[in-house]
Amino acid sequence: MIQATGAAKVQAAGGFRALSFDAGAPLQLSSGETIAPLTVAFETYGALNAERSNAVLVCHALGGDQFVASPNPITGRPAWWPRIVGPGLPIDTNRLFVICSNVVGGAMGSTGPSSPASDGKPHGLRLPPITIADMVRAQAMLVEALGIESLFLVIGPGMGGMQALNWASAYPRRVFACASVAASARQSAQNIALAELGRQAIMADPDWRNGAYMAHNVRPLKGANIARTAMRITDLAADEVRTRAQGFSNQEQFKIALDGGAPAAYIDRFDANSFLYLSRAMDRFDLARDFGGRLSNAFQDASTRYGVFAFKDDWRYPPQDSREIAHALIGAGADASYVEIPSGGGHDACFREEPQFEAALTGFVDAAAAARGLALQGGTL
Amino acid sequence: MIQATGAAKVQAAGGFRALSFDAGAPLQLSSGETIAPLTVAFETYGALNAERSNAVLVCHALGGDQFVASPNPITGRPAWWPRIVGPGLPIDTNRLFVICSNVVGGAMGSTGPSSPASDGKPHGLRLPPITIADMVRAQAMLVEALGIESLFLVIGPGMGGMQALNWASAYPRRVFACASVAASARQSAQNIALAELGRQAIMADPDWRNGAYMAHNVRPLKGANIARTAMRITDLAADEVRTRAQGFSNQEQFKIALDGGAPAAYIDRFDANSFLYLSRAMDRFDLARDFGGRLSNAFQDASTRYGVFAFKDDWRYPPQDSREIAHALIGAGADASYVEIPSGGGHDACFREEPQFEAALTGFVDAAAAARGLALQGGTL
Repeated sequence: MIQATGAAKVQAAGGFRALSFDAGAPLQLSSGETIAPLTVAFETYGALNAERSNAVLVCHALGGDQFVASPNPITGRPAWWPRIVGPGLPIDTNRLFVICSNVVGGAMGSTGPSSPASDGKPHGLRLPPITIADMVRAQAMLVEALGIESLFLVIGPGMGGMQALNWASAYPRRVFACASVAASARQSAQNIALAELGRQAIMADPDWRNGAYMAHNVRPLKGANIARTAMRITDLAADEVRTRAQGFSNQEQFKIALDGGAPAAYIDRFDANSFLYLSRAMDRFDLARDFGGRLSNAFQDASTRYGVFAFKDDWRYPPQDSREIAHALIGAGADASYVEIPSGGGHDACFREEPQFEAALTGFVDAAAAARGLALQGGTL
Repeated sequence: MIQATGAAKVQAAGGFRALSFDAGAPLQLSSGETIAPLTVAFETYGALNAERSNAVLVCHALGGDQFVASPNPITGRPAWWPRIVGPGLPIDTNRLFVICSNVVGGAMGSTGPSSPASDGKPHGLRLPPITIADMVRAQAMLVEALGIESLFLVIGPGMGGMQALNWASAYPRRVFACASVAASARQSAQNIALAELGRQAIMADPDWRNGAYMAHNVRPLKGANIARTAMRITDLAADEVRTRAQGFSNQEQFKIALDGGAPAAYIDRFDANSFLYLSRAMDRFDLARDFGGRLSNAFQDASTRYGVFAFKDDWRYPPQDSREIAHALIGAGADASYVEIPSGGGHDACFREEPQFEAALTGFVDAAAAARGLALQGGTL
């Protein structure tokens, strides 16, 4: 059972389990503003050991939520990392205590544009801008409220990898190991451009209603579909994009070439305003910026162990992005491994069955667990 | 004065000067279908010499038209290549005869989705799919009708460069020199993806009316604006995209970061259905595909002289694309020059003031003119 300390209390937010922080514990934002009260919705898997040394924070991607290893009870979406987090899996919940929280700015119970403000109406666009560092600060409040001083591992794919890197940079003493999966220390111009198109499409949708669609009981589905396609494009491998688009059919020449349209389940869980906030947070992410433009300076404390995982034909976060992280870590004198998986699945590969990734991640986690003095798989905690 | 031969006659089409080809001279399309009658709107600059050896065909880009060196009389848009084509410029109209035609599928007088079909209504989506090769075949009909057996030079930027390469490949004996400017022999997955987003945005606009917006006297301006931004993004240099997007303002956080919105003049001349057709033509372009996937096989006749011009930070058609063309030409034993301009202006640089590009192009054109036996600049023809 989860118990919270300090200003936080466990409660339900929109049907999700959450910690709420009252006005005495505001979230300090990068913009200089604060959010109070703050709600952080989260899930946990496995049990915290007596030493409180086996906690893993999994950070979710732009399209993710806190349900890393179990179905989302509201949307029905299955666990998003079912081959990575669970009993006997690389992040083994038989021996590790896994926390996954919905990011600030998200739409699954944490404070975000769709959550209620003090006037009872959704924050909408009144919410201040959110950064990756803000997401991390909110997670740090959660982790602290759960009584965990030091995380065994912080890990995430895509936007989750950005958070993991930001965690290790901001709180080096509180992160034993850090794994970036198919991510980047700086959002690429290509990703910024695609996100910008998605945002424009949402804001051009008459049903967006200047962000107040909830009050009008409508949703900007057309814009959401385009934004989803913008993201979907870079989930695929470049070769797949070209193959799909070069089909030549008279009757159906302008049928959507890259996707059969978004599945209803995706659009059901897609909150347009959250997309605006989270995609802007990613656009602005540049971990080196606060360190004189030198990424290695962002990793001052060399005691954290790093695993950097890239997928060969990932077009959203190409291996070059991960190599830059690895080079910076080596430049900082950190203990860093770089693994490039020869996948054919594009960015999506990090969520799918990729035995080489699973094996490499298992090796990284097991080695870190041994160094931390945690029992090996099959042992007891 | 222009005189046409054979099945073609000079006439006005929608206010533009054009050649029309009757049913006896159909345009054979890559799809197997034909277009007849066919209208090709065009402009010319300078005078054809007695030997008919000084004709230059300039092929326009996706956002271009036939008004390469003079204002468009209908839209008022200024000449789109004012530093390249004109008296005393690299393509010197004091000694060269320049032809520029609106591509098939375009919206400036040539047969396209907005031009009238036999029932008097716009073709709309009834027009068959168009390829780059189809644009080139229509230009070949125009050039032949003008009594020109062999072009001194075929040149174009972006989509125009694709046409120039296709010209040299399809009609090697009719092209003395060929210049590809900031172009590619194969559309990249990134460009395909951005175009697909633009198409989806247009088709999601309620004012698109399934392509029949003209009949309803409306225009899909919101979709057009997004499509325009999709193109605009890669006109800029990657660094500029990132700088613009990383601005951090609370009040205006979702203001369009990459552009202040499309200028009215652009949207006035933007035809949404033409964008669908022309962008799909570019998506499908892969010059090597009909040659066993080997680009050098596309350039069989080594007598054409090639100039391949790239701009260092061009993000739409990066220098790598141009280098692949140059490598293929060298592999084919062709006389090829590759020039990479150290610009900071992204893809747009090819339309702007770039003294190094202008000097390099002048050198290429002058050398080719000397080889062709044309009078040098300042001479008489």
